[in-house]
Amino acid sequence: MTGNGTDGADTVPAQGKAGGVDARGSAADGVTGTRAGAGAGGADGPPVPGGWLRVVGLGPGGAGLVTPEVSETLRTATDAVGYGPYLARVPARSGLRCHASDNRVELERAAAALRLAAEGRRVAVVSAGDAGVFGMAAALFEAMERGPVSWREIDLAVLPGVSAMFAVAARAGAPLGHDFCAISLSDNLKPWALVEHRLRLAAEAGFTVALYNPISRARPWQLGRAFELLREVLPAVIPVIFATAVSRADERVVVTTLGEALPAMADMRTLVMVGTAETRLLPRADGGSWVYAPRSAPDSGPASLAGDAAQSAVAPGEDAAPASARVTVPGGSTGAGQATEPAAAGEDAAP
Amino acid sequence: MTGNGTDGADTVPAQGKAGGVDARGSAADGVTGTRAGAGAGGADGPPVPGGWLRVVGLGPGGAGLVTPEVSETLRTATDAVGYGPYLARVPARSGLRCHASDNRVELERAAAALRLAAEGRRVAVVSAGDAGVFGMAAALFEAMERGPVSWREIDLAVLPGVSAMFAVAARAGAPLGHDFCAISLSDNLKPWALVEHRLRLAAEAGFTVALYNPISRARPWQLGRAFELLREVLPAVIPVIFATAVSRADERVVVTTLGEALPAMADMRTLVMVGTAETRLLPRADGGSWVYAPRSAPDSGPASLAGDAAQSAVAPGEDAAPASARVTVPGGSTGAGQATEPAAAGEDAAP
Repeated sequence: MTGNGTDGADTVPAQGKAGGVDARGSAADGVTGTRAGAGAGGADGPPVPGGWLRVVGLGPGGAGLVTPEVSETLRTATDAVGYGPYLARVPARSGLRCHASDNRVELERAAAALRLAAEGRRVAVVSAGDAGVFGMAAALFEAMERGPVSWREIDLAVLPGVSAMFAVAARAGAPLGHDFCAISLSDNLKPWALVEHRLRLAAEAGFTVALYNPISRARPWQLGRAFELLREVLPAVIPVIFATAVSRADERVVVTTLGEALPAMADMRTLVMVGTAETRLLPRADGGSWVYAPRSAPDSGPASLAGDAAQSAVAPGEDAAPASARVTVPGGSTGAGQATEPAAAGEDAAP
Repeated sequence: MTGNGTDGADTVPAQGKAGGVDARGSAADGVTGTRAGAGAGGADGPPVPGGWLRVVGLGPGGAGLVTPEVSETLRTATDAVGYGPYLARVPARSGLRCHASDNRVELERAAAALRLAAEGRRVAVVSAGDAGVFGMAAALFEAMERGPVSWREIDLAVLPGVSAMFAVAARAGAPLGHDFCAISLSDNLKPWALVEHRLRLAAEAGFTVALYNPISRARPWQLGRAFELLREVLPAVIPVIFATAVSRADERVVVTTLGEALPAMADMRTLVMVGTAETRLLPRADGGSWVYAPRSAPDSGPASLAGDAAQSAVAPGEDAAPASARVTVPGGSTGAGQATEPAAAGEDAAP
């Protein structure tokens, strides 16, 4: 339930909207009680000198993926603010105050962090993955825009992290080696019609698509609908990656096809990646498949360049490139109920 | 000339296609002389035990953005393979053989690395940013697919890095806080018509667009044409970020508008990011602007949902949200010839 498969904090279903979550056992100390976009409680004078605010990405989970810059920031902060399970990844240290909050109170959390920094505290706001990707960075600026003008004088920086999507891509091979996009399936903050619009255009553009926030108890049908829609535009044989808890002990990566992709293959820690008609599979030594996007696209380009948008992601003459369903589970068990067949070698085009 | 503004290695103009570049001064030792996709020279027997190959992302340039996992890999490798200026970032160590090559020989470089690993060497293939984003990872799998089947038994992993696009986003604020895409403007390996097709669909989808490989001596007109095309679909007032050499000493970040964006604001170390009609600006303490994408999209959605694709990225009632041109240059000089005006505060919607 740590939501660590994705960058954003919007991966956890409703579990008591006002309920503070605190991985350290300390009191939720008012963060969750702060009003959304609060100017209330923030000093209107200039920030107290010495305070700062850093919005940091902790990476997907593994300690080897936390940047030195972020580690150093966490060593010098006086306060860490974030969703409980992410705060639990911050190395404990005496003198570091941890302010844990529920997953659904991003604006309140951001405002609380700004208020602390304005009071002269050294504040790290933590997100999983990269904080700028469906994470706390945007919420922080939203809270700053809505808050007292004095907050704009706070010493503020966003520190990038290893994003879930690139960690997943690395584990799977190189599915993002060509043009790609990222779409959150959460319709909390945008209309579902817009999600569908974007999915369709992304497929027609021939982008590999990273799907964030694919599923949760509060978001049960969206992923299935997304697959339905993508199957209207894309060939059923294109590879789909389900990557869960990448870089953590229970990491699981499953490769199947769009035709066989099921919402049940994902949970709220999963990032789903949908390839293109160009995406290729290669057998890996462990019996699974590498998934990669060739750097080149065919000269003929997608059919939609000649006017047929519905077929645009299927490049002429490339229908047969991706092989059929296969399952890759590095270091883990095979996905329940999914047939494993040995990956066919791609065409051996060595000169 | 180090191409460090982007993840990929395809940022440098032609400077002698066969010319080996070597940042350490050692001989180019055959890497550039290797034939594309070469099976030639690779042993067809199983890989020598103990050898491995890691494709690593070095991040955008700053030492604080190299992951511990990558640093450890570079400490234990026997061989480092890559484009010269990227190899120059690998900490020197006795016993580490560096194989530098030119920027335009990715498949040959990948094949050479696979051959070394098959011979039992511990090989790190280095890319800037994240190796999976227009970097060496895809080239590696292409070379593996074209090479001897025995190469598929090599102990291989891709190690993710901090990508240029997320490092740029962090410096600028949170321009990728909502749905986004990445498109390489290089038409070396795909037809230009496909680039235009993708740009148009990305704009119609309302994605923030990260443009990789925007310009070089060999690619002089593409960025200007891309701006032209985007101006046909998007309002002229939306923010555009030009970020050069992020996390390095000569970092420069300029924020302007689509209407005023000029190709001359980019060089081959620049990543260009084009916002959406929702993208907002906030004044920063240093006089420039933060750029961020609100997490939410308007309920009404883009106009194209009602059928007008040409207007789709302009959400009704949001035309006035982004302010006009402004320039942000943290820690650097202002861009030559670009007027700086203070950023207007967005609507102050605090409850």
